[in-house]
Amino acid sequence: MLEIRIEKTTKPKQKPENSAKLPFGSIFTDHMFVMNYDEGKGWHDARIIPYQNLSLEPSAMVFHYGQEMFEGLKAYKTDDGRTLLFRPQKNIERANNSNARLCIPQIPPEIFLDALKAVVKMDEDWIPTAEGTSLYIRPFVIATEPHLGVKASSSYLFIIILSPSGAYYANGFNPVKIWIEDDYVRAVRGGIGESKTGGNYVASLKAQEKAHDGGYNQVLWLDGVERKYIEEVGAMNIFFKINGTVITPQLNGSILPGVTRSSVVDLCKSWGYPTEERKISIDEVFEAFQKGQLEEVWGTGTAAVISPVDQLKWKDHLMPVNPGKIGPLSQKLYDTITGIQLGKIEDTFHWTLEVK
Amino acid sequence: MLEIRIEKTTKPKQKPENSAKLPFGSIFTDHMFVMNYDEGKGWHDARIIPYQNLSLEPSAMVFHYGQEMFEGLKAYKTDDGRTLLFRPQKNIERANNSNARLCIPQIPPEIFLDALKAVVKMDEDWIPTAEGTSLYIRPFVIATEPHLGVKASSSYLFIIILSPSGAYYANGFNPVKIWIEDDYVRAVRGGIGESKTGGNYVASLKAQEKAHDGGYNQVLWLDGVERKYIEEVGAMNIFFKINGTVITPQLNGSILPGVTRSSVVDLCKSWGYPTEERKISIDEVFEAFQKGQLEEVWGTGTAAVISPVDQLKWKDHLMPVNPGKIGPLSQKLYDTITGIQLGKIEDTFHWTLEVK
Repeated sequence: MLEIRIEKTTKPKQKPENSAKLPFGSIFTDHMFVMNYDEGKGWHDARIIPYQNLSLEPSAMVFHYGQEMFEGLKAYKTDDGRTLLFRPQKNIERANNSNARLCIPQIPPEIFLDALKAVVKMDEDWIPTAEGTSLYIRPFVIATEPHLGVKASSSYLFIIILSPSGAYYANGFNPVKIWIEDDYVRAVRGGIGESKTGGNYVASLKAQEKAHDGGYNQVLWLDGVERKYIEEVGAMNIFFKINGTVITPQLNGSILPGVTRSSVVDLCKSWGYPTEERKISIDEVFEAFQKGQLEEVWGTGTAAVISPVDQLKWKDHLMPVNPGKIGPLSQKLYDTITGIQLGKIEDTFHWTLEVK
Repeated sequence: MLEIRIEKTTKPKQKPENSAKLPFGSIFTDHMFVMNYDEGKGWHDARIIPYQNLSLEPSAMVFHYGQEMFEGLKAYKTDDGRTLLFRPQKNIERANNSNARLCIPQIPPEIFLDALKAVVKMDEDWIPTAEGTSLYIRPFVIATEPHLGVKASSSYLFIIILSPSGAYYANGFNPVKIWIEDDYVRAVRGGIGESKTGGNYVASLKAQEKAHDGGYNQVLWLDGVERKYIEEVGAMNIFFKINGTVITPQLNGSILPGVTRSSVVDLCKSWGYPTEERKISIDEVFEAFQKGQLEEVWGTGTAAVISPVDQLKWKDHLMPVNPGKIGPLSQKLYDTITGIQLGKIEDTFHWTLEVK
């Protein structure tokens, strides 16, 4: 068990209204978890302190060389008052895979989990319960060495902040329109695409801007080599249901291995759908659409859980998929996953972890 | 002329010894330039203040989504006491190109230049004059909006810090050994490779670690699509002299457009060398080496100026190029560029700008 020094806030903040209209990721709770890393000393000084600003040298490496890793997961409050995390071990495993690629030191998984549980427990009164809400948990690591040479930092901060949040997309669990980008590239094999790190997100902003200007919510990325195979949607992985088969791009090094993605694959298989993780080209999707076999499209991610897609745009081709409607499988996946997360549906996969 | 509020330090720091052994980028001067950006208000509150820590919310976007841009240039003190900048307009132009790709607001060039001149003037007593030293200038922009949704930030800080520095490589102007990477990828066309932003640097650390473990100083990157064409060396651009002709990879969207690179192209042309900016494959370099036509290899960058390369390693092939020696053209380029920077050689290209 990790020893955590605790300094409680003396000025508790006003909690937001427990409403489905909570914004995503802009309100933060009373406390945060912080732990330091220094070369030769390892991770040390684990503490829960009042939520507060970070004080860093302007030369801290995170501001210059992008050495930063983050994760995202959620805590839910059940009707009988229990606090549940959803598959936190998957996030911890992915965090350490990101760390390895980014030359950030590994965080011992048991310490990571203890930290998560302790800080969520401390602020569990902040977990909202209104429809579609949860406590969004953001663990992240930043490089702090004050030095302008390009190398791995010798010091880091590991921080966990908590945000009572509503739906990631302002329109909630409603269909989104997706723009398929064939000019800008998010990531390429051999790069950092499978790591959860800032560089992938900043690379996506320009195309996101283009998509928004065209009336689209999100960008679907094609691979950086052939500009042909489907990768992911920046903030989500993507699934297609074609002629009864569920298909999602296989993990190839440039796609983020989503926790919700993995859960959706398991659920679809358990329900008897032929489910394939494989290369899928945009041409194949377009052909399926033309033949009337593109039955459903949805995104998966921690923030939005399931995000039904009702329109794809690729070059001059418009592909309306169930316009304005939520596909039955998308709906069933959303209901099942959120049901498990909220403790309303039996957790046969043992995905939830109670914070005691 | 930009109006800059000035708050002088009341506790001037001890200046480091004016020695060729100054480290690179780890000592900072007494002051820094800071300016805020807020949506609807634009850039505002330009100020020079004592060098100090930044206080930012843990949810500030720079820590999560990598929205950060930096530049690097140098100030030199001439023998007759003038302070010179080297081609600052090129850095300002590149900064705004990076900003455009990263969805960071443009910085009006005249404001950028005023800020550079004012902060360098303020701390010009910190410019070291020992052999190989200069005042390294690091302008950078970071996203500060405290919000966890992926989008362009609505607020930013533009900061300039100054570091009296020695040679970028600990071994000074001596040959470096270069490892040619064919597994990891730094950047790809359509991505952020031509922007000066953290994401490109963090992507390079893992291969740099591999190179160091093998006894090499730096990594030479191949293109992310065919893994065949030469791109750049993370912290530098690269040049080859093959059978009398100077060749450097052409700017293609994934290569950083270096200011020293541009200066070297101009100088080589002015000296009558056939000089080509074009695609060049690693096979072509290896073939030239085998034929005994690979006469010189060097890197170019603001930090190291010219960095002679005396060994390349690609897969199982070792290519020793003038082992332990500095090629005559590398030497001439170094002497000429540093000579112009220090005001010792006539600046026929009008590259230097005096700070008055």
